[in-house]
Amino acid sequence: MELQGTSLIGGGRGASAGGEMRAVNPATGEELEPSYFTASRAEIDEAVALATEAAGPYGRLSGKERAVFLRAIADEIEALGDALKERVMAETALPEPRVLGETARTAGQMRLFADVIDEGSWVRARIDHGDPDREPMSKPDMRSMLRPVGPVVVFGASNFPLALSTAGGDTASALAAGNPVIVKAHPAHLGTAEMMGQAVRAAVKKCGMPDGVFSLLFGLGNQLGEVLVQHPDVKAVGFTGSLKGGRALMDLAAARPEPIPFFAEMGSINPVFILPEALAERGEAIAAGLQGAVNLGVGQFCTNPGMVVLDAASDGSGLVEKLTGSMGETPVAAMLTEGISEAYKAGVASVAGTEGMKVLAGGKGSGDGAGFGAEAALFEISGEAFLANPELRHEVFGPSTILVKPSGKEEALAIARSMEGNLTATVHGTEADIEANRELIELLEKKVGRLVFNGYPVGVEVGHATVHGGPYPASADGQSTSIGTMSIYRFARPVAWQDAPESILPQELQEANPLGISRMVEGKLEAGS
Amino acid sequence: MELQGTSLIGGGRGASAGGEMRAVNPATGEELEPSYFTASRAEIDEAVALATEAAGPYGRLSGKERAVFLRAIADEIEALGDALKERVMAETALPEPRVLGETARTAGQMRLFADVIDEGSWVRARIDHGDPDREPMSKPDMRSMLRPVGPVVVFGASNFPLALSTAGGDTASALAAGNPVIVKAHPAHLGTAEMMGQAVRAAVKKCGMPDGVFSLLFGLGNQLGEVLVQHPDVKAVGFTGSLKGGRALMDLAAARPEPIPFFAEMGSINPVFILPEALAERGEAIAAGLQGAVNLGVGQFCTNPGMVVLDAASDGSGLVEKLTGSMGETPVAAMLTEGISEAYKAGVASVAGTEGMKVLAGGKGSGDGAGFGAEAALFEISGEAFLANPELRHEVFGPSTILVKPSGKEEALAIARSMEGNLTATVHGTEADIEANRELIELLEKKVGRLVFNGYPVGVEVGHATVHGGPYPASADGQSTSIGTMSIYRFARPVAWQDAPESILPQELQEANPLGISRMVEGKLEAGS
Repeated sequence: MELQGTSLIGGGRGASAGGEMRAVNPATGEELEPSYFTASRAEIDEAVALATEAAGPYGRLSGKERAVFLRAIADEIEALGDALKERVMAETALPEPRVLGETARTAGQMRLFADVIDEGSWVRARIDHGDPDREPMSKPDMRSMLRPVGPVVVFGASNFPLALSTAGGDTASALAAGNPVIVKAHPAHLGTAEMMGQAVRAAVKKCGMPDGVFSLLFGLGNQLGEVLVQHPDVKAVGFTGSLKGGRALMDLAAARPEPIPFFAEMGSINPVFILPEALAERGEAIAAGLQGAVNLGVGQFCTNPGMVVLDAASDGSGLVEKLTGSMGETPVAAMLTEGISEAYKAGVASVAGTEGMKVLAGGKGSGDGAGFGAEAALFEISGEAFLANPELRHEVFGPSTILVKPSGKEEALAIARSMEGNLTATVHGTEADIEANRELIELLEKKVGRLVFNGYPVGVEVGHATVHGGPYPASADGQSTSIGTMSIYRFARPVAWQDAPESILPQELQEANPLGISRMVEGKLEAGS
Repeated sequence: MELQGTSLIGGGRGASAGGEMRAVNPATGEELEPSYFTASRAEIDEAVALATEAAGPYGRLSGKERAVFLRAIADEIEALGDALKERVMAETALPEPRVLGETARTAGQMRLFADVIDEGSWVRARIDHGDPDREPMSKPDMRSMLRPVGPVVVFGASNFPLALSTAGGDTASALAAGNPVIVKAHPAHLGTAEMMGQAVRAAVKKCGMPDGVFSLLFGLGNQLGEVLVQHPDVKAVGFTGSLKGGRALMDLAAARPEPIPFFAEMGSINPVFILPEALAERGEAIAAGLQGAVNLGVGQFCTNPGMVVLDAASDGSGLVEKLTGSMGETPVAAMLTEGISEAYKAGVASVAGTEGMKVLAGGKGSGDGAGFGAEAALFEISGEAFLANPELRHEVFGPSTILVKPSGKEEALAIARSMEGNLTATVHGTEADIEANRELIELLEKKVGRLVFNGYPVGVEVGHATVHGGPYPASADGQSTSIGTMSIYRFARPVAWQDAPESILPQELQEANPLGISRMVEGKLEAGS
């Protein structure tokens, strides 16, 4: 596939004009071919107009028809083969196993959503039968189900060039729910975006979907994203990125004449609490697990554990020594972009400069040599000093973590209470630890979307029970998840039909249940056949 | 019950100090005893602090325990008896049957939510079992369910002093989901609010609930509402009222350092489309139905039909003549407040003054005599003129409606396309009409939360399939409903437990399913026992 550097607008291409940009190899700093051109306002409008036109017909396709389309996308992604792998590695410096794994995950989640809509019960069909004889008023027949919201804008994420970008989770869930998608490519992996966009387009053609069901736009700076979020015909947004960028767009979405749902996953610090018995029993093993979790993907995971709370009285477990050693020995590795690497350096420097902070390993933030290298960093601070420095509750995106040592249980609770919303919290504890720390765990439950026990938060499973979201600022909308099959619910809304003739009812609501889906009838759930 | 005029703050009372106000009898204009006192900032903080303290213990009660509480509230409401009825009638001028009906609905919906949480499946429990042997990585055990969001603020509605106010739908759904509630009383029915608040408090005491689970605050002007929506410990808001007031609060909620979910139901114009065969077959019957729907509760329903679209070529059906006659003969009736009545007069005057608008009946907006009387009004305009006057798409709250006469099918489609988000749209049509107007119906589906066929949108059923919401500006969040059992989902958020020991899992997620609820296991729904 030859890369062209122009936006994909429905079935057509944007012009080779407008602000130019290039992807950069983070391992070497060299610019990659070709140049990419910023979509013009007219091109943006065209993409949105095509999506709006496609919304009706695409949204009325059956789940089975859309499932065929999603599976075709998965096939096309896999067909990209080595060319995709090489481009992703060149643009991101991610290692081959990660790129292969993420490719498999991206195709896999497309197929998982295909399975969900093929089966069909996700629409939450509900039927309350009418009763013409009810006194004092007859009771109407009421039937409701979820329907698509309309054109969805998806922002590609820097840190998951495949699984959370062009044909990633947001795109899969929005398409599954019946919405056209307009993707804003992330500037860090432009060629990857174009290849993935081509894969989606190939599936659109193969399956005879309306052209406007998918567009991919390139743009320099923030303007493209701002225009899309404010476009009157865009009906929802999915975003993965920084708190600063996410909040700015979230505010734009809320200030529109017609505010729209804005789903942003903005990362978090993901506290890990190590309880006394677990620490004593397996401090060194936990240290090894933490080193792996903090450094996975050069720390560029939303679920990267940015702080580890362990009792000050529990020294001698070997955890601190072991972790200090292994963090110090972690090789310098390239981050995704120069901007991310610079932000990491600044973040690490700010942590290192906090009063009472001890640098156990690393701490300069960058290594020597070419590319956007990051040095792993480990810090230590007392619980008291941590509580006195609220800025430590904000994420430093990269391979660093802070050991926080409260003076006892009460201070550990105070630390938990001081946390903002997080994607995850992790507890290492024996059964006895957990029993003795119920209050802590109940407190953590209120702050997060996912509670992890005796494990590590990185590498979230894409399943049916998955929650990858959390109270603000982890997510813009803490009532949603951006990963897992429940994410489909972000892009749907309920519609009720009252006393509607069968001929106009969607199949999901017809009396005979022709699709055999699970439905709630008179308030009682009936499992599908 | 003696009315005291002070806020109910957990188990205590606010001071008899701060800005005073009185309820007014809308039929006579006379002020009612006693004076009500504005809650101070310290009292607001105390109510929120009590709610925050209660959130943990209340949220961890089982659904069965909370169901007992909700049923006790229903009993206490019914025990208010004639005293409540008389106070509501004095404060609202609503007729006795309506007040009795609304009381029954209010107690009934409390019991309906009790049934939902007693049964327990509403939490959407999902279980994906782990697999330690999976390659290349072991698969964790993941279990998720809905948990309460935290303290919820509810704004009493002017037009439903019982069913959508102090112990109304928002309060019922928030309490059912496990959240403490702080109600801002609507100034139009202060005594009703205090009586209903006392009923809730009596149930709190009887069931041994934490005091902070319910507070009721009185306040003059907008300040109380603004402080509550911006309070850092408030986690969600339910509101029913005007677009102007709702949007102002919605903007405050979005601009918070930690934005919170804001669920407002802000009314709509609820278009009714009469298709040709239905018009020809039963024009007069539809006219009778419309007269009833437009004037129900003096037009003070969010689902009041504010416009009726019928083909210009379809005269002679008798609908227009019949409706003109019956609207002209509708007796003048008192609206809820002086402000509502003034706004109605102004709204009607503005409609009457629109270029091309014909006044068929009424049109002055107010009647003679005492109180806040409203005169029913009927207008007529061509489709072309309607489309040229976008301000006609905004609700006039009260007993008026506009007949819109498009020149043909294309113009009718253009009118549907021009609509903003609405709670409902209604279609009167024979099977043949509906078949011939699929495009129109598909268009309307995108604009509303509920599609009504051959009926009238007023008087929404409180059921499991009910959707009372719609795209903005009908609702702040068009993905939610404010009436019916699905409204519980506004005040809950998903939490996942990864590899958690059974001892810490909520009962809903324990392997043996001790509650016998419906759950999704490995992506497949298993009906409860």
